[in-house]
Amino acid sequence: MAYPGRVRIVEVGPRDGLQNEAVAVPVEAKVALIEALAGAGLRVIEAGSFVSPRWVPQMAATAEVLARLRPLPGVALPVLVPNLQGLEAALAAGVEEVAVFGAASEAFSRRNINCSIAESLDRFAPVVERALAAGLRVRGYVSCVLGCPYEGEVAPAAVRSVAAALAAMGCYEVSLGDTIGTGTPVKARRMVEAVAEAVPVDRLALHFHDTYGQALANILACLDLGVSVVDSAVAGLGGCPYAKGASGNVATEDLVYMLHGMGIETGVDLHRLHAAGAAICAALGQPTGSRVARALG
Amino acid sequence: MAYPGRVRIVEVGPRDGLQNEAVAVPVEAKVALIEALAGAGLRVIEAGSFVSPRWVPQMAATAEVLARLRPLPGVALPVLVPNLQGLEAALAAGVEEVAVFGAASEAFSRRNINCSIAESLDRFAPVVERALAAGLRVRGYVSCVLGCPYEGEVAPAAVRSVAAALAAMGCYEVSLGDTIGTGTPVKARRMVEAVAEAVPVDRLALHFHDTYGQALANILACLDLGVSVVDSAVAGLGGCPYAKGASGNVATEDLVYMLHGMGIETGVDLHRLHAAGAAICAALGQPTGSRVARALG
Repeated sequence: MAYPGRVRIVEVGPRDGLQNEAVAVPVEAKVALIEALAGAGLRVIEAGSFVSPRWVPQMAATAEVLARLRPLPGVALPVLVPNLQGLEAALAAGVEEVAVFGAASEAFSRRNINCSIAESLDRFAPVVERALAAGLRVRGYVSCVLGCPYEGEVAPAAVRSVAAALAAMGCYEVSLGDTIGTGTPVKARRMVEAVAEAVPVDRLALHFHDTYGQALANILACLDLGVSVVDSAVAGLGGCPYAKGASGNVATEDLVYMLHGMGIETGVDLHRLHAAGAAICAALGQPTGSRVARALG
Repeated sequence: MAYPGRVRIVEVGPRDGLQNEAVAVPVEAKVALIEALAGAGLRVIEAGSFVSPRWVPQMAATAEVLARLRPLPGVALPVLVPNLQGLEAALAAGVEEVAVFGAASEAFSRRNINCSIAESLDRFAPVVERALAAGLRVRGYVSCVLGCPYEGEVAPAAVRSVAAALAAMGCYEVSLGDTIGTGTPVKARRMVEAVAEAVPVDRLALHFHDTYGQALANILACLDLGVSVVDSAVAGLGGCPYAKGASGNVATEDLVYMLHGMGIETGVDLHRLHAAGAAICAALGQPTGSRVARALG
């Protein structure tokens, strides 16, 4: 086994986490969270999304959040965009990186973004083209890579096909999302191996939710395949509003604890990260989803 | 990688779990728990301990629990015994298997069982000898194998030494306990590799607590070394009353979910196991510590 010497963590708490909160999170709390995460050493922080506030009201203030942030040199702040309208809003807000998101399951695609997988890819192509032409970096997400709330098992070949399409469009990286957290280690590893047949493994990221407590084991099972980018959310915030029974992303604290224990660098200060998580949990009035955070008290 | 085709789960909830509850658990609830676990397919269920009720009052009724159980053919019901007095009580109760427990950390040994490691081994020797002479099977535990609340890091050689001593006394299996749950995958694997130099790997068991959310990843990291016995507690019950910040064992539900997802048999029915966990959590008036149980609702 050869684990990577360093893992780049993509912190998705401010977007994938907060988009699912029942309570409106004040702009100030989001700004404070992003600044605290940057202060803890995170260098990629998904800051929000430019989607219709009718669908995801929690993200309506993304432009305002970005405008209020103090300069964070060296920190990438990607935002999610579903279409050209969202992209234009992101460009107007001065973002330098966007992400588009497709699904590996037909049923999920139809219920989540209201079109087939093929239609969604057709819709993304001009978005990615325009973004690249404007000098942005574009990241791609594939959801339901290890299971779908409507279809059950998802074939690795279906994931590979969507990931390959996103990479071919020009996404510099494709993040593989176990949206409902039903994956287990052997299946996770086989899925990544299948995708790596079409997309170089150093352009893949793992995005595993911890609904069934499997996320760290699944990440471990994939880490010696050459993947060295992992998405996570401080305090285990988040989930998917359209996925039955979905809970949050794997907690960044738990991930950092594991990686550091394995001698893998992340550049993150665990104690400052823990403080950032404690602050947003206090703002939300909810307990942390991170076991490490609970153990540190 | 070659994972085992089958893993034997040693369910420790009724002992390692319930011994740490602040509230007294009625005998009826313990009997119902053990019978429900047996009904879910578990074939080794640690039923209690014969230790001084002054130290562990929750276990005072172990003889009564055993006496009230309906016959459970094919189910082993080991109990913990710290000394000859405990062993005599266990023999009087008609048990067929006992377990003795040492520590890999001097400081923990002194604080937990009030003697040095060497003294504890001297104390166990006649217990194991008498148990074997009476026809019992004897299991050994080593605690603090991946960290000590007082000493911090624990050398794999210290674990190996205690495990070897227990095996040499006649313990058919030695269970390696990450009592405070601070271990991470690479260290867990190296520790098992070190112990396996002295004790055949098929006589080793993993006993990892989930305090820092690392237990499943740690188990995964060791499973292709030839270990095929794992201790866990339904609903993630338990912990260690003497270890600062310790939380429960890895949840049996989460372990079974991972193993079954990997194509590894356990003989356990996950839904009946989940029902057993829900019932004891209701009796205790506390939420489950299992993520799978939460996801299944």
